[in-house]
Amino acid sequence: MLNFVFDNKTEIIFGKHTESQVGELTKRYGKKVLLHYGSGSIKKYGLYEKITKSLNESNIDFIELGGVVANPKLGLVYAGIELCRKENVDFILAVGGGSVIDSAKAISLGYYYDGDVWDFFSTGKAAEKVLPVGTVLTIPAAGSESSTATVITKEEGELKVGYGSLLLRPKFSILNPEITFTLPNYQTAAGAVDMIGHVMERYFTNTTNVELTDRLCEGIIKTVINNAPLAINDNNNYNARAEIMWSGAVAHNGLIGTGREEDWASHIIEHEISAKYNVAHGVGLAVIYPAWMKYVYKHDLNRFALFANKIFDIEINESNLEETALKGIEALENFYQEIGMPIRFSDLNLDDKHFEEMASKASQGGKVEVGLFVKLNKEDILNIYKLALK
Amino acid sequence: MLNFVFDNKTEIIFGKHTESQVGELTKRYGKKVLLHYGSGSIKKYGLYEKITKSLNESNIDFIELGGVVANPKLGLVYAGIELCRKENVDFILAVGGGSVIDSAKAISLGYYYDGDVWDFFSTGKAAEKVLPVGTVLTIPAAGSESSTATVITKEEGELKVGYGSLLLRPKFSILNPEITFTLPNYQTAAGAVDMIGHVMERYFTNTTNVELTDRLCEGIIKTVINNAPLAINDNNNYNARAEIMWSGAVAHNGLIGTGREEDWASHIIEHEISAKYNVAHGVGLAVIYPAWMKYVYKHDLNRFALFANKIFDIEINESNLEETALKGIEALENFYQEIGMPIRFSDLNLDDKHFEEMASKASQGGKVEVGLFVKLNKEDILNIYKLALK
Repeated sequence: MLNFVFDNKTEIIFGKHTESQVGELTKRYGKKVLLHYGSGSIKKYGLYEKITKSLNESNIDFIELGGVVANPKLGLVYAGIELCRKENVDFILAVGGGSVIDSAKAISLGYYYDGDVWDFFSTGKAAEKVLPVGTVLTIPAAGSESSTATVITKEEGELKVGYGSLLLRPKFSILNPEITFTLPNYQTAAGAVDMIGHVMERYFTNTTNVELTDRLCEGIIKTVINNAPLAINDNNNYNARAEIMWSGAVAHNGLIGTGREEDWASHIIEHEISAKYNVAHGVGLAVIYPAWMKYVYKHDLNRFALFANKIFDIEINESNLEETALKGIEALENFYQEIGMPIRFSDLNLDDKHFEEMASKASQGGKVEVGLFVKLNKEDILNIYKLALK
Repeated sequence: MLNFVFDNKTEIIFGKHTESQVGELTKRYGKKVLLHYGSGSIKKYGLYEKITKSLNESNIDFIELGGVVANPKLGLVYAGIELCRKENVDFILAVGGGSVIDSAKAISLGYYYDGDVWDFFSTGKAAEKVLPVGTVLTIPAAGSESSTATVITKEEGELKVGYGSLLLRPKFSILNPEITFTLPNYQTAAGAVDMIGHVMERYFTNTTNVELTDRLCEGIIKTVINNAPLAINDNNNYNARAEIMWSGAVAHNGLIGTGREEDWASHIIEHEISAKYNVAHGVGLAVIYPAWMKYVYKHDLNRFALFANKIFDIEINESNLEETALKGIEALENFYQEIGMPIRFSDLNLDDKHFEEMASKASQGGKVEVGLFVKLNKEDILNIYKLALK
């Protein structure tokens, strides 16, 4: 086990009707609030009214900025920073999924910074002061509701880049599973893939003696795999929605990565798909993970066999670990398909014509390797895209 | 799943040599520090020198109060409050196990309060303002290093009572598994029992649809059961010590209780043993748990069978769940014995002469029931003590 710091200061308010507490919670941190949201689905299902009612009841002065899209754009972040400065905003309330929350975090990051907020993403420089952010989560997937991360896409050059800082953890996040009843099944499924991915990035590690976090990882993945089909078959299944929603937050709040090297190759390789084709991140991950697994599993047959056994109850064939490992990968593919996810580029009607460009960008022009479990260069990334073609 | 709030703001600094960061961490919160510790083992093994060196290097002015004993006493808490007020202390650094940390928390609780600090314990009244506390953990067991709880014993009447408040979470806790190399095996084992107990208090619940936290509970218990014997067989086994130390904190930081009713009967029933005989809490729990389980298992055979299966890999006999449940209880007893713990009063050379008095106190003179999984009155508690006799 490696040395680590675990510092997760996001307060989670979880359960039915909890969105009615948003005014009271916001009041602790801000007087002038930016209400940030997406393309309007919060207005369609009545959430907007509940949120603004609660803010008004707490006498909170707020302005609004909607329009966040999947794979949130730098342009809107710039607009948000300008608006917040002009209106002397002291708190950002993000109501939406990971894209809205990531956009809010990026605005909070740029607010006090004199230079271009993209500097943080392009150079990884440390944040020193940010606006506080709170969230009301509508799509369980990204884990941004209690994570340190934000991922923003710069339109020019289709650059999708992540950035992390402890300062970016939301002050509070309200998680009401009922709000997710209206999610399209495709989004529920993509969310499940995303949160499983966040666990896999930690699970596949070269760090040994990480028994506790291995068990926690397995518990989260199994819970998501058990409950995603239930939520899809019955959209109003509160308990299944609750398991998924809490799993998504715990998957990415830092706990399960404690004491271990994390990988993150698959996320970087996927980001190029989202950036190029504007595919939801979870959908892209369903395409990339099986290919990545097939490409790297020989690096640690034991761990892949363990994955097959612990997640899918596949008996470990000690005399043929490779067989067990491959069965595990196949089982994961089957699960993705069962919940309606594509598992190949061809399932998305995409071909290989941008693979070279995407592999080049993922490896920063062939200059860097990605991942820590197995370090992958541009050629490796290209091979993974090819494995995922059809 | 029930509604919940999860708010765990303790920063964990985990790993080798981390105690050297104590000065730097303390400096963030205080200028005049009370260094609080136990009976002197921190001086025996060089930890005291490391801590005071780090505090001095950070130019921190500190005073000392040692002498905390197992089942920490109210008398020393009063002395600590008085000392802190006299010396204008603004931060308490607890270096020790759960007893030292609990004592520090109680001092922090009383510092700003005009009345008797025992009021909080006797009435459960809400804390409004406390001194900040940081910790360097030396005994993994109580989980106090990131919990909201403190348990103090009032000498007069041998009253051992717990109190909880979000304000009592330490600001930071330093966890270096190396510090635990010098622990006597008996203490390592009692710590393992204690942390498993913290999980069991959550695991045995009437709340349904708590799949994620069930899996997390099982992961923690299995990890402790796998690693405690390794640590006892080889005191310097860093990895086993690390698994245990991190498990103890995660077991009691609130995560695994999210969304579920918790029980806590066994803890209350055990507190009377500690208070009466000054037995370590974990030791008392090893005596109480098997008896409690045998007394209540019929309330939910499924859950006890699940416990047997998930923790001890005992195959579930669907046509005789009782058999599976009993095998699980037996396996837990065997584990306790394997690590050198008593499992009956007779193993501690104690008889039944105080059972009536203890049952009366645990039930506040027969006026209250304890536990939520199965509510137990004075008679039930007495029966459990009797079951645990020999």
